[in-house]
Order: sequence, then C-alpha cells, then structure tokens
Amino acid sequence: MEITINKTQNPKAKPDMSNLPFGKYFSDHMFIMDYDEGKGWHDPRIVPYGPIELDPSAMVFHYAQEVFEGLKAYKSSDGHVRLFRPDKNFARLNVSNERLAIPQIDEALCLEGLKKLVELDKEWIPEQEGTSLYIRPFIIATDPFLGVKPSESYKFMIICSPSGLYYPEGLAPVKIYVEDSYVRAVRGGTGFTKTGGNYAGSIRAQVVAHEKGYSQVLWLDGVEQKYIEEVGSMNIFFKINGEVVTPALNGSILSGITRMSTIELLKSWGVPVSERKISIQEVSDAYDNGTLEECFGTGTAAIISPVGELSWDDKVMLINDNKIGEITQRIFDTITNIQTGKEEDKMGWVLKVD
Amino acid sequence: MEITINKTQNPKAKPDMSNLPFGKYFSDHMFIMDYDEGKGWHDPRIVPYGPIELDPSAMVFHYAQEVFEGLKAYKSSDGHVRLFRPDKNFARLNVSNERLAIPQIDEALCLEGLKKLVELDKEWIPEQEGTSLYIRPFIIATDPFLGVKPSESYKFMIICSPSGLYYPEGLAPVKIYVEDSYVRAVRGGTGFTKTGGNYAGSIRAQVVAHEKGYSQVLWLDGVEQKYIEEVGSMNIFFKINGEVVTPALNGSILSGITRMSTIELLKSWGVPVSERKISIQEVSDAYDNGTLEECFGTGTAAIISPVGELSWDDKVMLINDNKIGEITQRIFDTITNIQTGKEEDKMGWVLKVD
Repeated sequence: MEITINKTQNPKAKPDMSNLPFGKYFSDHMFIMDYDEGKGWHDPRIVPYGPIELDPSAMVFHYAQEVFEGLKAYKSSDGHVRLFRPDKNFARLNVSNERLAIPQIDEALCLEGLKKLVELDKEWIPEQEGTSLYIRPFIIATDPFLGVKPSESYKFMIICSPSGLYYPEGLAPVKIYVEDSYVRAVRGGTGFTKTGGNYAGSIRAQVVAHEKGYSQVLWLDGVEQKYIEEVGSMNIFFKINGEVVTPALNGSILSGITRMSTIELLKSWGVPVSERKISIQEVSDAYDNGTLEECFGTGTAAIISPVGELSWDDKVMLINDNKIGEITQRIFDTITNIQTGKEEDKMGWVLKVD
Repeated sequence: MEITINKTQNPKAKPDMSNLPFGKYFSDHMFIMDYDEGKGWHDPRIVPYGPIELDPSAMVFHYAQEVFEGLKAYKSSDGHVRLFRPDKNFARLNVSNERLAIPQIDEALCLEGLKKLVELDKEWIPEQEGTSLYIRPFIIATDPFLGVKPSESYKFMIICSPSGLYYPEGLAPVKIYVEDSYVRAVRGGTGFTKTGGNYAGSIRAQVVAHEKGYSQVLWLDGVEQKYIEEVGSMNIFFKINGEVVTPALNGSILSGITRMSTIELLKSWGVPVSERKISIQEVSDAYDNGTLEECFGTGTAAIISPVGELSWDDKVMLINDNKIGEITQRIFDTITNIQTGKEEDKMGWVLKVD
C-alpha cells in the first residue's frame, strides 16, 4: 500500500519551544488509516492535523474499544531525527489489538507512515534538554452501533506533540503511596495492554493521591493486594542490597519498553537484575534492615522518575535520603544520551529517520 | 438552565419498524450539554442528530474517560409515551461519574432533557411487540490533551435508537459457559460502573464464546475465580430449590435496574429471593441434586434472557429441559406489560412523558 501525503497549506504557528508543556500542542500533520470489515486496513495517508468527525453512536464512545502507544522522536546535535525502539511499540500495539479484538496492523507499514510523518514535521521536534516530539499512535472503534461486539470499522492514527517534561518534578524524587483500596488490573483482564480502560479506572486514585500530597500511587496486585505491580502509569524498580528487582510480567502489568531497556542496560553493565514477584512487605522489610537503596519508575513519557518517599499505611519510607540514586541516575543519563545521540548507541536501539 | 430546542429541517426516513435491529438506527434529534472547568455544565440543548467533531487528542480516544446509561421508551396502546425508571439511570450515571472522576450531572435537568427529546421524537418509538426506543445517555472526556488526569471538558449526550431484540434468540433459552480465563472486573476496579473499559475488556471472551457455539459467558469473580458475577453484560439469577438467588452487589457487579426490579417483583409476590455470594460449585451441586430449577439474565437491553444450558469445564448442565422457566416467564411478562402499559403499574415504575 502506498502512503499518500497531503501537505498543509496553512502551517500552524509553533508554541514557545523553550517552555513546552507535555501533550498539549500538536504538529502540522497526522497519519490516518481506515479499517473496514471485508476490506482490511486501507488508505494510509498523511494529512493536515485537524478534527475528526464521528457519529455519536461510534463504539469508541460507549465501549472503549481503543488501544494506543507512546514513543518519542529526538533531534541529535547533528540535526538527524532519531526514534527510540519504534518497532517495539508497533509490536506491542498488536498485542493490545489481540486482547481488545481489534484487527492486527501491518507493523512495517505503520513504521513507514511514522517515519514519513516525523520527517515531514521535523521542524516540530524541540531541541532543548528534556524535550522531545511525543508520538501517539492509536486505534479507535468507529462503528455507529450500540451493542457490545467487535467493531467492523476502525481508525488508526498517529499524532505528534512537541513536549516538555511529563511530570513537573522532572528528575526530582517524588512521593508515592501504596494504594490499598483501588485496583488497577487483575490477571485475565487488560492490564498488560495499552487500552483506555486501564487508564480511566486509575484516574480517581490519582486524584486522591494528589489531594493527599502524593504524585502517584503504587498499585498492588488485584488478587491478593500484596504484590507490587506498577507506579502511576510506569513500571517500578527497587534496588535492594545491590540487586535491582522489578515485578515480573504477569498479565496485569504493562510490558514497558523503557522497562525492557532498563533491564537490558543493567545486564550489559553486570548489575544483578531480577524480574520476579515482589511484595510490599518485602520492600518494607528491606527498608527496615537498611537494604532498600533505590526506587524508580520507568515509562516512555517520564523516562525515569526517582521515588524519594514511599508511604504504606502509617509507615513512611524515605529512600536514599530523598535523593536520586546512583543507578537511577546512570540509567536516566544513558537512555537519554542514546536517545539524543550524545552517546554511542551500542544497543542498536535508535532508528534514524533521515 | 433552559433547554433550547433546534428542530431538524430534514427529518430522516424511518427504517422498517416491523423488522428492527438493535441500536443501528437513530432518531431525528439528540440532547447535548457541555462541561468546562470553571463554568460547569452548560448549554443544554436538543439539536438535529448528527456527527460530532473532536480533536484526535481528545482524551476519550486515549484514556476512555467515559460513562453511559441505557433505558427504554415505549408507547402504550392509548398512544402515551412511557419511560421505565429513568430516575434510576441518572442516579447510577452519577455513581459512575464519581468513580471515573467525571463531574456530577444535575439529574433532574437531564431527565427533563430526556423527556423533551423523547416527546419530540415520539414518532420514532416503535410499537411492535418486543420493540422499543432504546435511549443512550453518555458522557465523554473531550480535552485535547495527552496525559492521564481528569479531563477539564466533557460532552453529555442522549441519543435514541428505535430497536428490536438485543439478542436474536429473544426469549429462547441461550447456551452460556463459565469463563475461567478472562476476568471482567475485580473489587477496587470499575466493575460496578457503566464505563466503556468494562465492555472493551469483555469483547474478546465474547468472540471466543461465539466461536465455541455459546451466546455469552458467565463471569466469575476476579479474586478467587469461584464466585458468580454476571452473564455477558447482564446480571444473573438462579432459582434453586424454590429460592431465587443472585450475586450480591460487591463492587465488581453492575447494579442493574432490571435486577433491582426483578428482586422487588419477587418480594412483592412472596417468592423467596436472596442477594448473596454464590459459587459456581454451589450451582453445579444444585444441578447434581436436582434443585437447579431456573436460570436467567436481566438487563435493560434484553430485559430477561433465559439460560437453557450452562457449561463449566467438561460439565454441561441442562436447565429446566432448555425451556423458559415459570418464574422467568412471569418476570418477563410482568416487566414488559408494565413497560408497555398492558398491566397496571402497581410498583410506580413508569414515568409518563406526555
């Protein structure tokens, strides 16, 4: 299939690139592709960024049959456009599609569309430290029909947002608390996918966390409410007695690409790293015996978010004196340096677009 | 707030009212009301039915911050328009809103909007047996923003669909099977609300059920996968040894309005009815000792759906010889007769619109 390009005749004014919020401004173009039963995915195209029109009965508004991805483009100091592991995003999108009964996409075609889009809108890639072009591929069910079943028509789109930091704290350690009332996901559900419902269900807990003075919540498993799953919308890592531990992928945790990259980096450095079940009690015990050395979240939007304080019931655990830990800092520096081209990409993670 | 009305200049051709599918055709008008932070809900209005325009970054497409309701309007033989317990729907919508961090609606205003809409589109209420005007109130998050937080703008809408049967089987008993792999909801999650994510996560299991020759799945609890929750998108009832049992509302089950009405009817008839935990093992034991007398689902769309066959692992339970049970039939007849005005509304459930 050929990707057609219809360039805008009215390029938008760019926002102040030195003071960018996250996810608020969008570039001049977007990628769209439609799916219809019997016809498959068709008409991949790049068109001027603009509103979409849907029937009020479109299934996405009622049954949330929707999936998404998030990745980033950077411009290196020599002016080249760089994407971070985009193949992993499209592969994961198909994993989400399978669970949500959405038809599989052609990953190579979507990557091609993404490259063309980012190339066309490369003037929208901010270059200040901490900024990037945040890229959002997503699929929505568009059948005008009220009844629970897989839609017979979908829209796949990619939109791009020149963005600053996701969390205003940046690399400053955040305060989080252990959520023991709300549950994010359970095995057999959709926790391992990037689908809207996982996020919709988490918003209330986040509001309560903010009211209590915390940045995010630490989610426990839905079955026993004992084992650690994620923090906010990030994966979580603990350094305990020299070993880095992160919850194993169990069906209710997102298989994060920054998580994967962090594990690969740690292994390449010879730092012991383990993916396994870890309970909040074990973390608390490690804190008590002085072996809880570092804690951080990983995710595409924030990259690395150090955790400085963790509250569980009445217990407050101050981690590494509320300072960013050595391993946490090293992972952040290495990933961002690879992303922006300041460091050699020994892992082969970067796809150069131009 | 005054509800403005802008009547269509181009009334649509009506579909064949004697052969209506469910949820596919929509009436001439719709109700809309907007919410903006600092301004609250504003501009309640009835306008011609038509597409809505949203930014591709609208939060509903990404984080599924959305809730909905479903209810029905009927025309009685004397030509009056009747709504079934609409106050319960708007009250439940606010319960869903609270969990999904969506601002509360003014229930009285929304009911007023619904009445005006149904009155205006009353020619769209079908009159054949088994048909009704299915009404779908819903709210979607419209902020053009990529980041997980409560939206600062929303749209509340009501659309109406002249509809036939939800399940093609109608009152013919259906085959269902006990889902032991996928999970619909867990306590602490959103299972008690009508939010898109609950339905999105259920579609895959439904596809598998259809492939295996079943109409629906019976959901077990997310914690122990032992206790019965719902069937498909309906509540479930069992008649065991003369007593009608339905799972208690535990935070992961929808508080169905047809469920509530069924319980109230049974009590008014002096039929023993109990809301409690009930395991699939208990149902299986009742089957073995010959006391499993009837089984049926309840929901607004299907009203009553008798279950004729229930499969659990390798065990197939044939219920009441795959015929609709006496109590099941009596509940269906009574509710539909009250809805359509063929029977006196002793319970005070019907709201006459005109």
